[in-house]
Amino acid sequence: MRRTSFKGTNCSVAATLEIVGEWWSLLVVREAFLGLRRFEQLQERLGIARNVLTTRLRTLVAHGVLERVPYQDRPPRFEYRLTDKGRALFPVIVSLMAWGDRWAVQCGPPLHLVDRETGKPVEPVLIDRRTGRAIELSGVRAVPGPGATPATRRFLRTREE
Amino acid sequence: MRRTSFKGTNCSVAATLEIVGEWWSLLVVREAFLGLRRFEQLQERLGIARNVLTTRLRTLVAHGVLERVPYQDRPPRFEYRLTDKGRALFPVIVSLMAWGDRWAVQCGPPLHLVDRETGKPVEPVLIDRRTGRAIELSGVRAVPGPGATPATRRFLRTREE
Repeated sequence: MRRTSFKGTNCSVAATLEIVGEWWSLLVVREAFLGLRRFEQLQERLGIARNVLTTRLRTLVAHGVLERVPYQDRPPRFEYRLTDKGRALFPVIVSLMAWGDRWAVQCGPPLHLVDRETGKPVEPVLIDRRTGRAIELSGVRAVPGPGATPATRRFLRTREE
Repeated sequence: MRRTSFKGTNCSVAATLEIVGEWWSLLVVREAFLGLRRFEQLQERLGIARNVLTTRLRTLVAHGVLERVPYQDRPPRFEYRLTDKGRALFPVIVSLMAWGDRWAVQCGPPLHLVDRETGKPVEPVLIDRRTGRAIELSGVRAVPGPGATPATRRFLRTREE
């Protein structure tokens, strides 16, 4: 089904998409954040083919985003729970949702995330923990990290010129 | 190539992925943030089939994420620039990258985004502009927004129980 792989790409965005970038995968993760854990619930809510859902769940479990946990013995039944690695995708999901609310949906946001204390919709901003300032394209530049290949280093040098 | 569509799904994450969720699309956007604008540059750097890149660029232009701008008359040549809508994807890309840096790459981050003033790598945190606090799963709940369908309202009620 997938035409190629991003493996070997020296890029954390590609590495992330290698795990969660297949069609449907991030929606499965989103449903997990909304509390859905069982195959039948996910299948019904997403309206996805059962074999596709099976494949996506298997990939997410293989990469440790979800874990498959028994909840019943007879007959044996399993549910899918977010791991710490999976829960760490929350900012990704919220960022995708915020962009869609602003730029992609026609009739206003289908749902709001509201702060449990204030009851007001959250307004997500990505800030730098060190400076407290919003992270904006104009305020940052890309430099090689410890995992940079020579090709990445060369590429970033051309970008600096 | 795509097996189905998320159109009709009452969800901003799905609406976003409908636009940028195809395999390769977010990597094209990422390269655009790194300053690449021309077909040949993108094709070389991503190592992607030319017909796939053509299709992805066409979709991104059709949705107003990129615009196709002439930069030369004879022969006519075009480049692809991020629009405001495209630049608004920066938090999505940074969130995907941060997750990959932490959870998906093997040998450390391939690149760091550093603050232009301090020269230090940024540490992205998603906060609520209203409260200044980090947005965490445990601190929010989902409620219907103005664009909620009856099915979404019913679904969210079952989640509250």
